[in-house]
Amino acid sequence: MNAISHFAELKQRQRRADALPAAFVARLRERFGERLSLARAVREHHGTDISSYPVTPPDAVVFAESTDDVVAVVEACGAHRVPVIPFGTGTSVEGHVLAVDGGVCVDLSRMNHVLEVNAADLDVRVEAGVTRKQLNAEVKDTGLFFPIDPGADASLGGMASTRASGTNAVRYGTMRENVLGATVVLADGRVIRVGGRARKSAAGYDLVRLFVGAEGTLGILTELTLRLHPIPEGMSAASCAFPSVRAAVDAVIEAIQCGIPIARVELLDRLTVSAVNRYSKLGLAEAPTLWFEFHGTPRGVEEQATQMQAIATEHGGVGFVWSSRPEERSRLWQARHDAYFACLALKPGSRMIATDVCVPISRLADCIAATEEDIARASMPIPLFGHVGDGNFHLMILVDPDSDAEIAEAWDLNARLVRRAMAMGGTCTGEHGIGLGKREFLVEEFGPAVDVMRAIKQALDPAQLLNPGKVL
Amino acid sequence: MNAISHFAELKQRQRRADALPAAFVARLRERFGERLSLARAVREHHGTDISSYPVTPPDAVVFAESTDDVVAVVEACGAHRVPVIPFGTGTSVEGHVLAVDGGVCVDLSRMNHVLEVNAADLDVRVEAGVTRKQLNAEVKDTGLFFPIDPGADASLGGMASTRASGTNAVRYGTMRENVLGATVVLADGRVIRVGGRARKSAAGYDLVRLFVGAEGTLGILTELTLRLHPIPEGMSAASCAFPSVRAAVDAVIEAIQCGIPIARVELLDRLTVSAVNRYSKLGLAEAPTLWFEFHGTPRGVEEQATQMQAIATEHGGVGFVWSSRPEERSRLWQARHDAYFACLALKPGSRMIATDVCVPISRLADCIAATEEDIARASMPIPLFGHVGDGNFHLMILVDPDSDAEIAEAWDLNARLVRRAMAMGGTCTGEHGIGLGKREFLVEEFGPAVDVMRAIKQALDPAQLLNPGKVL
Repeated sequence: MNAISHFAELKQRQRRADALPAAFVARLRERFGERLSLARAVREHHGTDISSYPVTPPDAVVFAESTDDVVAVVEACGAHRVPVIPFGTGTSVEGHVLAVDGGVCVDLSRMNHVLEVNAADLDVRVEAGVTRKQLNAEVKDTGLFFPIDPGADASLGGMASTRASGTNAVRYGTMRENVLGATVVLADGRVIRVGGRARKSAAGYDLVRLFVGAEGTLGILTELTLRLHPIPEGMSAASCAFPSVRAAVDAVIEAIQCGIPIARVELLDRLTVSAVNRYSKLGLAEAPTLWFEFHGTPRGVEEQATQMQAIATEHGGVGFVWSSRPEERSRLWQARHDAYFACLALKPGSRMIATDVCVPISRLADCIAATEEDIARASMPIPLFGHVGDGNFHLMILVDPDSDAEIAEAWDLNARLVRRAMAMGGTCTGEHGIGLGKREFLVEEFGPAVDVMRAIKQALDPAQLLNPGKVL
Repeated sequence: MNAISHFAELKQRQRRADALPAAFVARLRERFGERLSLARAVREHHGTDISSYPVTPPDAVVFAESTDDVVAVVEACGAHRVPVIPFGTGTSVEGHVLAVDGGVCVDLSRMNHVLEVNAADLDVRVEAGVTRKQLNAEVKDTGLFFPIDPGADASLGGMASTRASGTNAVRYGTMRENVLGATVVLADGRVIRVGGRARKSAAGYDLVRLFVGAEGTLGILTELTLRLHPIPEGMSAASCAFPSVRAAVDAVIEAIQCGIPIARVELLDRLTVSAVNRYSKLGLAEAPTLWFEFHGTPRGVEEQATQMQAIATEHGGVGFVWSSRPEERSRLWQARHDAYFACLALKPGSRMIATDVCVPISRLADCIAATEEDIARASMPIPLFGHVGDGNFHLMILVDPDSDAEIAEAWDLNARLVRRAMAMGGTCTGEHGIGLGKREFLVEEFGPAVDVMRAIKQALDPAQLLNPGKVL
């Protein structure tokens, strides 16, 4: 099935009548009372993420307040063969929360308690609905922070489920490296605890990593134990313009090979710089640009910035400016986070189709160069930016959501890019996940390994009720 | 089944007659010729690791030279319902290679080619039989290195299978974080590629992490793509004695909370220091001691050592000495690696039963204090050392391998320690794996999550032929 037929199918689904058995609704109503909603607005909100897919609402929404609540929903759904879809903040970008087969959405946003902060051990236990900003606010006094930052103030359960990362994965890793343990509700209602608080373990199969990135298709995460990191004593941010994307990428490769422990390094193409200049009033030179952040001791970050400046200059970088002043740093990174809105503003009324390939960094400049040719031929504005230290970059293809032609053009461009990246040893998704739209690419990327994924899905969710239509 | 009955069972197995069907042997002989061995000495070598378990030989050994060879063995074993056990260097510590149900051992040591070094991407592709020292020798000229160092010069396939780590996991992670991709031969002979070269990916279930640490029970790893790291420009090593284990641990907790990026930090108890003094002629003060290594720029490692010295002094540390001279560093770390032999020399003719718990670092001092009471009551010498930055420590219980009483006492002590660690939020194994001896503890630690592991095993190896009797 190609992307366009997804859209047609989803629009069809949008018009589908309620189909939940009355006995099932009665069972949920008895347990959840007003925490069960069948209201259209509530359902539509829960059938929407930030992708360009049509709204695809579930038949009902339950607001869970505990692991037991989630068990009750899953058991009821199992008994009546109704799909169940976990929901955090609805900020995923690959249609993860869309109810393509209807069913019940379990909203976890009320499970928003930080349960346990262990400062000496640099870990924390949270309910899955806690968002990353909430967590950072609640642990601030410990001198620790949770570094994973995908931009949106997503729920930690959702971030774990999509294996999210973001701007500082180059230093701190992704959700894969930062989830120590989890409580999971399985398809049959069993509750298991996977992983734990030990910093490392060689005890049995790595179930934590199996559920992290499974997009809610193998179980529903209700609690997480996460790693925290010390807030660095020194931080500095820097910006530098380059004559070409290739020069910028080469500078980053050299810095990484030299072992400079860059905390963040973001590439913005000329169009993105122009968009953020306008949106965030930055006045940057409109050229391919790198934004850096360094973490360490005050002397250490000075040393890192100085080393980085020397490398950037060698590669033709100009106007390298760095600052340890918090307000300067915040201004730059707020602008980076606003890039989404800044880019949307390039085409009023548009939605974005975001690409997400990740390639070995040695191929990044080639991959971007070939992609720039596609961009030049495209009928819409397409800013490009990304996490260059990881080889992960995004196009934000700005489409008119009502134009089938634009959507088709965007998906075609995405498909070309994904295949280009895979041919270079890369992956179809660095951090957004498979969701609805990349299932074909998953098969192209991994071939028979996908049969192993299917076998695992079959073993853990034989009735295929957990977030159906996603990943596989 | 308790540990003692394992021993009895294994001794029984040792005496079992060859049981391979003639047609099966003929099939292997035709394919492998002299690379199939039925010789007793070869079989016994392959039924031995460095644990204290009795030699438990396979019925045959095949020396594989390619993934296709491994497929041929696995297919033949599948057709005749014969167990198959992968073998690297035989340096595991939990009986992983023991042929408890007989069968064929696939020796991967001839698959020892470094296939591809990508210096710009900091990755390398190797056959599973390459050892970590060989790899480091072969990539030395790139300015990169592979950091995982479990002591033994183990094969990388074996290290991946047991999720090995070692002295510098506190900075560089374990095999979990350093395997990017793998080629795996499944139980039915299918070959799959999991993961890849991209630095991060959100594409589907994390099969890499599923096979890493599966101890050869879900598939046989034949190739690996691994992360490399820049050889730091500056390195320094330090040693410091403390008035108590608690004081030493508190110093490490404070250092980690301050964000000092220690590359290694090892704790040695008084008995271990005394043993390495004698064996490696070090002349250290005989007190609980920390050994550190710092990686960074020359200025950075100086700063780290100075910060660490200040923290150590606050916690009563005395005689803090540090050096950036390579020969000083090597002497210290060679002594650490020789600790195994140094400790064995405390009781000539002994074998070791190694414990391997890992606890949240805030509980480490408590865990060690309670364990020291057990040690004081024990009838044999028991040195204690470990990777204190991770909360992982080992007892080396020195037993007479012919004394059932000593073996029983050791296993009893181990069981008490494991339960103590689990009660503190820890794990039964930080880095050695489950193997034969910790299967009961796996169930105690994870309860119903082990049923999920069983379901996965059943889905991928329904005939239970891959390394039977291990993990589950």
